[in-house]
Amino acid sequence: RINGDRLWAALMELAQIGATAKGGVKRLALTDLDKQGRDLVVGWGKQAGMSVTVDQIGNVFMRRDGTNNALPPVMTGSHIDTQPTGGKFDGNYGVLAGLEVVRTLNDLKIKTEAPIEVAFWTNEEGSRFVPVMMGSGVFCGAFSLETAYAAKDTEGKTVGEELARIGYKGEQVPGDHPIGAYFETHIEQGPVLEDADKVIGVVPAVMGLSWYDCVVTGMEAHAGPTPMGLRKDALQVSTRIMQEVVAIANRYPPYGRGTVGMVQVFPNSRNVIPGEVKFSIDLRNVNDELLNTMHEEMLAFIDKTRSETGLKISIERVSYYPPCPFHPECVDAVRNATAKLGYSTMDVVSGAGHDAIYAARLAPAGMIFVPCKDGISHNEIEDAKSEHLEAGCNVLLHAMLERARI
Amino acid sequence: RINGDRLWAALMELAQIGATAKGGVKRLALTDLDKQGRDLVVGWGKQAGMSVTVDQIGNVFMRRDGTNNALPPVMTGSHIDTQPTGGKFDGNYGVLAGLEVVRTLNDLKIKTEAPIEVAFWTNEEGSRFVPVMMGSGVFCGAFSLETAYAAKDTEGKTVGEELARIGYKGEQVPGDHPIGAYFETHIEQGPVLEDADKVIGVVPAVMGLSWYDCVVTGMEAHAGPTPMGLRKDALQVSTRIMQEVVAIANRYPPYGRGTVGMVQVFPNSRNVIPGEVKFSIDLRNVNDELLNTMHEEMLAFIDKTRSETGLKISIERVSYYPPCPFHPECVDAVRNATAKLGYSTMDVVSGAGHDAIYAARLAPAGMIFVPCKDGISHNEIEDAKSEHLEAGCNVLLHAMLERARI
Ligand SMILES: NC(=O)NCCC(=O)O
Ligand SMILES: NC(=O)NCCC(=O)O
Repeated sequence: RINGDRLWAALMELAQIGATAKGGVKRLALTDLDKQGRDLVVGWGKQAGMSVTVDQIGNVFMRRDGTNNALPPVMTGSHIDTQPTGGKFDGNYGVLAGLEVVRTLNDLKIKTEAPIEVAFWTNEEGSRFVPVMMGSGVFCGAFSLETAYAAKDTEGKTVGEELARIGYKGEQVPGDHPIGAYFETHIEQGPVLEDADKVIGVVPAVMGLSWYDCVVTGMEAHAGPTPMGLRKDALQVSTRIMQEVVAIANRYPPYGRGTVGMVQVFPNSRNVIPGEVKFSIDLRNVNDELLNTMHEEMLAFIDKTRSETGLKISIERVSYYPPCPFHPECVDAVRNATAKLGYSTMDVVSGAGHDAIYAARLAPAGMIFVPCKDGISHNEIEDAKSEHLEAGCNVLLHAMLERARI
Repeated sequence: RINGDRLWAALMELAQIGATAKGGVKRLALTDLDKQGRDLVVGWGKQAGMSVTVDQIGNVFMRRDGTNNALPPVMTGSHIDTQPTGGKFDGNYGVLAGLEVVRTLNDLKIKTEAPIEVAFWTNEEGSRFVPVMMGSGVFCGAFSLETAYAAKDTEGKTVGEELARIGYKGEQVPGDHPIGAYFETHIEQGPVLEDADKVIGVVPAVMGLSWYDCVVTGMEAHAGPTPMGLRKDALQVSTRIMQEVVAIANRYPPYGRGTVGMVQVFPNSRNVIPGEVKFSIDLRNVNDELLNTMHEEMLAFIDKTRSETGLKISIERVSYYPPCPFHPECVDAVRNATAKLGYSTMDVVSGAGHDAIYAARLAPAGMIFVPCKDGISHNEIEDAKSEHLEAGCNVLLHAMLERARI
């Protein structure tokens, strides 16, 4: 069994870096704070006797040798970047649970046959730079290193520059790194486990996701003298599309999701009719056919709105991954470990994307969920119980040991 | 008749100060550029034989004596500060048309019975410092000198400091300055004259204005795992209100106006359901009773939305002035001058606020509009035709002479 107090202490220490007044964490990818967080975790990894490799997209792999180092490692990991108003557990828990597994193996002087690795992947959140899950995406070849390097934040800084600046542009070619099996522990980020009063979520699959940038172009003009009938108000046209995004998701329960999370209005002055509005669209479903239907319905609505209003509307898909069912062997490893340890459990489909879905393209993969308070994440009030985090980490330990063999 | 070429040349010379690459002007109130612009205009006024007074809020009055200086002056004026992306004509035209009237009277050696004054008012645009129409507002007592002095720009510099710094904090108590009648020429800032192919707009009134800040508070949560039915999406609720703002204005044609120009979404991340949205509302009408009805309908809709959605919605009125009908004698003076000169004309209600509405609280006032290209202002592409500017200035000359008597 792992040491729950030590795991909790590590989580609280890492959460100091970028701590917000409301008890959350703001540690955006490739900022100075991200560098501080990375340095802290790498230092802990080295203290635990692990060797560290960084690849060209800044993914970090911390390795504990096995008795047979020719075997591909059994890997666990997640991310330590956060949302602008993020919490202490999202991602960070998956990385520090991996560290706690290694510390426990060290304490118990357990040698595994296959090596064990703890990874953290660059820019999982996608808040500062798109695409989301960038590090694991480049690693598995979902998109190229060049695409990722060229991604810009709102100030025009690129991933390539920022990686070099914080000293995490490594040497290793992404993906040039074998994986035997991959496990990831994570807070659920939804209300299902808490509602059902279960401790461990076995994750059969992750929903597919489609992200878009939509730009509506009207004509900026003075809010006073411009008659209503002569306006080309980019915001009013945008609000129709924003409402339809939610209406589409509501037509495909229970796994349809539709969200507009980001909006920019130009010139954003109270007495100027908006001339341009940019906003994001996020559509999800666990069924790829339904996700595609949602996509088609949205494009059709935009065509209709364009012809009804005469305004220019552009829509570009900026991210997509299909639903990802996890490997039966890894799902079973999680289920078996949970049963052995006697925790209450149920299956939970993941609505959030995780680095595990990209790892799953290269190796058998599985995930372990634990409840979080009120199902809230991507919020400074995100919270989780120490005993649940400990339980998830114990399940991780046993699932990894099943694959790595003692 | 005035000299249209000389008027155009003065406009183009003043537009050099703060000229932008896109052909516009950026000369924000109380900046070094504003000082340069003020100095240039004051120099021209002195060359034309006028005496200059500056009041404590930096309003500048340039005076040409009459034959009976006991009479209150017939005044014209406007402003020379601009929007951050402003044009060459908004405000500047009204001031330089006044100067051109005086130059013409000098050329023709015409003596008026009442003195003639050309004023420019401080910070009409309200871009750098709020409230808008600050100089004329203090002059007529709409708000206090102390309120105005304390106004800060985004860098924390105050109006009081900046006025002193550029040397335009005068001695005269604002308002301690009689006005016999006030005229203001201005580009229309709307499309009505151009659409109707008329040269002169006689302005019977300026619409009243009500500005609000609205804040909708929901609950930020992850866009993937949070089921649609459990969301408190602040943006979706906001879009209903944004649409209603326009719907309300459309219910009160032809002078109802409703605009949402400024929006901020928190945390503004593409995979986070917005937890808070702040936006501005701008309602206008030329009829105060209808403006009040619009106000009441908006509050009622917000109450309804609050109880239907359960989200917190706050609404605060941040600016208000009632509709301002101009004085029949001044409106007639403009109408008569236009008829005498034979220009095509129509009545145009002003949707934009002007210094004239504050001057109108102290003296009979009227306005003269000329067309601007595509009705566009508050934009670097703002444009107007020399012959229209000349026509408006001729109307100003004759309207002022009617009031000042030869
Ligand atoms: N786990 C997580 O928040 N991933 C970010 C990508 C997503 O929006 O699902
Ligand atoms: N003329 C002008 O643009 N005034 C600014 C105040 C308003 O929005 O009407």
